Amino acid sequence: MSRKLYELAAADETLLFSPYCWRTKLALAHKNLEYETIPWRFTEKDAIAFSGQGKVPVLVDGARTIHDSEIIAEYLEATYPNEPALFADPAARAITRFVKSWTEDVLHPLVARIVLPDIFVKLDPRDKAYFRDSRERAWGMTIEDINAQRPAATKALTAGLAPLRGTLKAQPFIAGTAPAYADHIIFGALQWAVLTSATPLLGEEPIIAAWMSAVLECYGL
Amino acid sequence: MSRKLYELAAADETLLFSPYCWRTKLALAHKNLEYETIPWRFTEKDAIAFSGQGKVPVLVDGARTIHDSEIIAEYLEATYPNEPALFADPAARAITRFVKSWTEDVLHPLVARIVLPDIFVKLDPRDKAYFRDSRERAWGMTIEDINAQRPAATKALTAGLAPLRGTLKAQPFIAGTAPAYADHIIFGALQWAVLTSATPLLGEEPIIAAWMSAVLECYGL
Repeated sequence: MSRKLYELAAADETLLFSPYCWRTKLALAHKNLEYETIPWRFTEKDAIAFSGQGKVPVLVDGARTIHDSEIIAEYLEATYPNEPALFADPAARAITRFVKSWTEDVLHPLVARIVLPDIFVKLDPRDKAYFRDSRERAWGMTIEDINAQRPAATKALTAGLAPLRGTLKAQPFIAGTAPAYADHIIFGALQWAVLTSATPLLGEEPIIAAWMSAVLECYGL
Repeated sequence: MSRKLYELAAADETLLFSPYCWRTKLALAHKNLEYETIPWRFTEKDAIAFSGQGKVPVLVDGARTIHDSEIIAEYLEATYPNEPALFADPAARAITRFVKSWTEDVLHPLVARIVLPDIFVKLDPRDKAYFRDSRERAWGMTIEDINAQRPAATKALTAGLAPLRGTLKAQPFIAGTAPAYADHIIFGALQWAVLTSATPLLGEEPIIAAWMSAVLECYGL
């Protein structure tokens, strides 16, 4: 297939857990575009060196190589205008940026505090030293210390999800009656959590869990 | 004038501080609609009894009486379609609901923890007993106890504003190149804070302060 997506994988190459890769997976599904997944590990920098940088998602679309989930979304919207819109009009696109900021500034740290230790366990052995070193430096504590705070982190996630819960009580998707990129962004963060957590998350969040199922079902995933 | 807006006022009737009233004030300005302000205090239930309930904003537009800022916004959008749109398309309107949930679930409590004691000082004497009683019951502590936590509350507001800061680093308004109802909602919460706080807020938030000035300037306020 001429369309390939390099996606972050655990030791189990079917465990594709990156929140940013999930945004791109849903955006491709939204645009009805098929692709082949190339599982990629943190330390396989050589495998994506052709993209000019060292992070996934990397999308190869025929002769084009695009990296960074946001740039990929813009590329897909511009290149496939006859498929369903990711952003609708300019105002919806602008307000989606607030959803993105909230997701990255608030939701990602809340999720990371819970699942970083679980991800560490599931990683390919070659990735473990890099992951421990980079994450412990970013968080200023050991992975074991992060794990010790799991009960507080789980409570903090529940509290932090209030704006999502409130929105989904009023309407089926963030973008209204059907999912769009605003949904993809938040879904990516929670799919990262659900796929990697050693304990069930969202078990007491029926509205959010139902929305995640509905997003996947919309795209036949 | 046949258009009147009942707005929450302090002892000084020019101190109009309700976040919900500010949403309506900006929505009216956005729609180029003039109106007369009727200052109203918490305990003047009789003065708005004609609206069938006891809270402001209450808008009287000719023969119509409308209450609740969200219903007023919908009314203005439907009644004045030839004026600039508050919501643009249905997707923007849906995603604006996430902004509303975040503002009410996260930002309002962060602001309240700082300014409730300052508002108490500024209220009309007739309102003080009602305000103390209702707020102390809601917060489970005295106004004096809330005030004692002001330093922590101020730090929490700074942290909580991250998604707004991130959005405004990327674009001039929440809704893109011009303000719309998504801006009005967040502006209302921060205007409530700025107008009532006994200490300067947002002094170290140049991006947010500039956005607030730009919103007012757009509407000639």
